[in-house]
Amino acid sequence: MNKKYFRFSQATVAYYPAESFQSLKHIADQRTTVLLTDENVFSAHTKKFRNWNTIILKPGEAYKNQAAVDSIIEELIGLKCDRNFTLVGVGGGVVTDITGYVAGIYMRGIRFGFVPTSLLAMVDASIGGKNGVDVGVYKNMAGLIRQPSFILHDLNFLASLPDAEWYNGFAEIIKHASVKDAAMFKELEQSSPALFMKNKKLAGELIQKNVRLKHKVVMKDEFETGERKLLNFGHTLGHAIENLYALSHGRSIAIGMSFAAKLSENLLGFKQRERVEALLEKYQLPVQLDYEKGKVLEVLTMDKKRSGTTINFILIKKTGQGIIHPISLNQLAEEL
Amino acid sequence: MNKKYFRFSQATVAYYPAESFQSLKHIADQRTTVLLTDENVFSAHTKKFRNWNTIILKPGEAYKNQAAVDSIIEELIGLKCDRNFTLVGVGGGVVTDITGYVAGIYMRGIRFGFVPTSLLAMVDASIGGKNGVDVGVYKNMAGLIRQPSFILHDLNFLASLPDAEWYNGFAEIIKHASVKDAAMFKELEQSSPALFMKNKKLAGELIQKNVRLKHKVVMKDEFETGERKLLNFGHTLGHAIENLYALSHGRSIAIGMSFAAKLSENLLGFKQRERVEALLEKYQLPVQLDYEKGKVLEVLTMDKKRSGTTINFILIKKTGQGIIHPISLNQLAEEL
Repeated sequence: MNKKYFRFSQATVAYYPAESFQSLKHIADQRTTVLLTDENVFSAHTKKFRNWNTIILKPGEAYKNQAAVDSIIEELIGLKCDRNFTLVGVGGGVVTDITGYVAGIYMRGIRFGFVPTSLLAMVDASIGGKNGVDVGVYKNMAGLIRQPSFILHDLNFLASLPDAEWYNGFAEIIKHASVKDAAMFKELEQSSPALFMKNKKLAGELIQKNVRLKHKVVMKDEFETGERKLLNFGHTLGHAIENLYALSHGRSIAIGMSFAAKLSENLLGFKQRERVEALLEKYQLPVQLDYEKGKVLEVLTMDKKRSGTTINFILIKKTGQGIIHPISLNQLAEEL
Repeated sequence: MNKKYFRFSQATVAYYPAESFQSLKHIADQRTTVLLTDENVFSAHTKKFRNWNTIILKPGEAYKNQAAVDSIIEELIGLKCDRNFTLVGVGGGVVTDITGYVAGIYMRGIRFGFVPTSLLAMVDASIGGKNGVDVGVYKNMAGLIRQPSFILHDLNFLASLPDAEWYNGFAEIIKHASVKDAAMFKELEQSSPALFMKNKKLAGELIQKNVRLKHKVVMKDEFETGERKLLNFGHTLGHAIENLYALSHGRSIAIGMSFAAKLSENLLGFKQRERVEALLEKYQLPVQLDYEKGKVLEVLTMDKKRSGTTINFILIKKTGQGIIHPISLNQLAEEL
């Protein structure tokens, strides 16, 4: 099995970039492993789950909450899971976020790994150890930072991925390109979503590039005291509108990125706002939304990135180069 | 302010052994601190909480659950707490357990400290970083290990402590003596609960001795791979009966210790079972309970110390010297 290691201060993540789901049993003993998945993934791939203890969640961000955590813990107790068990999240970002969180708190922490099945989970959500659940409209308000023991990619899962889910994933890829990788930005401009969707090799290369990029940033700054903040590009406004308007994560942060690009233009003289918007649109992502400013501002006030009356906003100085820019809540209110 | 430091791999705990509650404001800024307490402590010491943001919980183990965590998080959001806030648990073990847990997961972790107000919380619950909540009858099934930034002892809180709460605390002190400190065991035999209850200086010395003992064990083995397990003496049967019969923690583990002493006699030829029982009785603690074996065994099966069909039981070889003794669930069933 081809694998790479990403080393963190307290853990090492084994990454299997191109493996069959069948191989999972060589990484996690079936007798002491529980898979966590959702109804969508389970019904599209039922056979794969044969011989595995499996807990099936209701799909979607609306179920990424404490009630789901409670019911999973009760099921784990029912399955008589002790501290030697491994929890494996097989699904998109919601599943991997909940899996990491439950594994972090069950009996004060058990081993866990991920088999991300969506593009977004492969390039972003499953990487970096952030996990958690929402509290009301507030995203990821309860959670931990804890690295998985392994991440296994089986690109065959992408075959059953709806188009909208591809675009969701491209939003995070465009984010990576915008703040860290001008060359990838250009590559995305020269390609198209359809090209990646029909060419597994091309998609695989793009995924691995993003896995490396994100791990590199997180290994330098696991607990987000500096550079890792750049990966929040588009996520401040994005998170605020996501649960308020029940938008997909990709669409929310696309709107957030385009707002942040406008802000970058106004505050830093960033010259390529149209280029960012054009790329988002090329990948079928929205660049604006008619939202209620008052409500959005209220949610923004509880953003985890706030410190007193200031939010660390992520802007771009030039394409491929993000910067952290503290901005007051008042100024933000005006810009909205 | 007199203080000591206990250093862990990822954190340092500042311990203020004899301070007035008034001093708390020099350790935690009132503008960015929220106190967590329960109705009992709040009504006995209402004035102390003036000028502090305070969240008041319903008292008792029955409320140490996820619902309490949810409502605290909602109150923290209501108070607009950001990541720079400090959470301080002012209360007994239930309050400190919940405080550490909420602080560990709120926005993926904020600073926290403890002002334990009961003898049990001072000598045991507030020390060592274990926190969490119960899930049904299963104790501490969701939780973390994370050290507080500080622990402040104000012995004046003990003045309002009901006698039963003193005995609760003595149970953990007898536990420490039984597995780690033969001299303290003897000292307890030669003294009496009444002596400590009426002599603040004597109580203070006993408390500090136990704080040092527990920190010493935990600093050597924070994540309980070895020696820290000894501190589970009496806690295997103890935890199983505690929520099943709504017993106090101290009474539960006293029954657990006396069972473990009997087991030590049967399996290891331990010769001083009567001495342990006599000491428990001297400190007003029970040494037996007529429980339903089937039910208890069912809960024991989900003990966090179980690994497959074996439980790491803590026995005593001789007074003051605990050992870890793996025992099968079947053998345990017979001994019960």
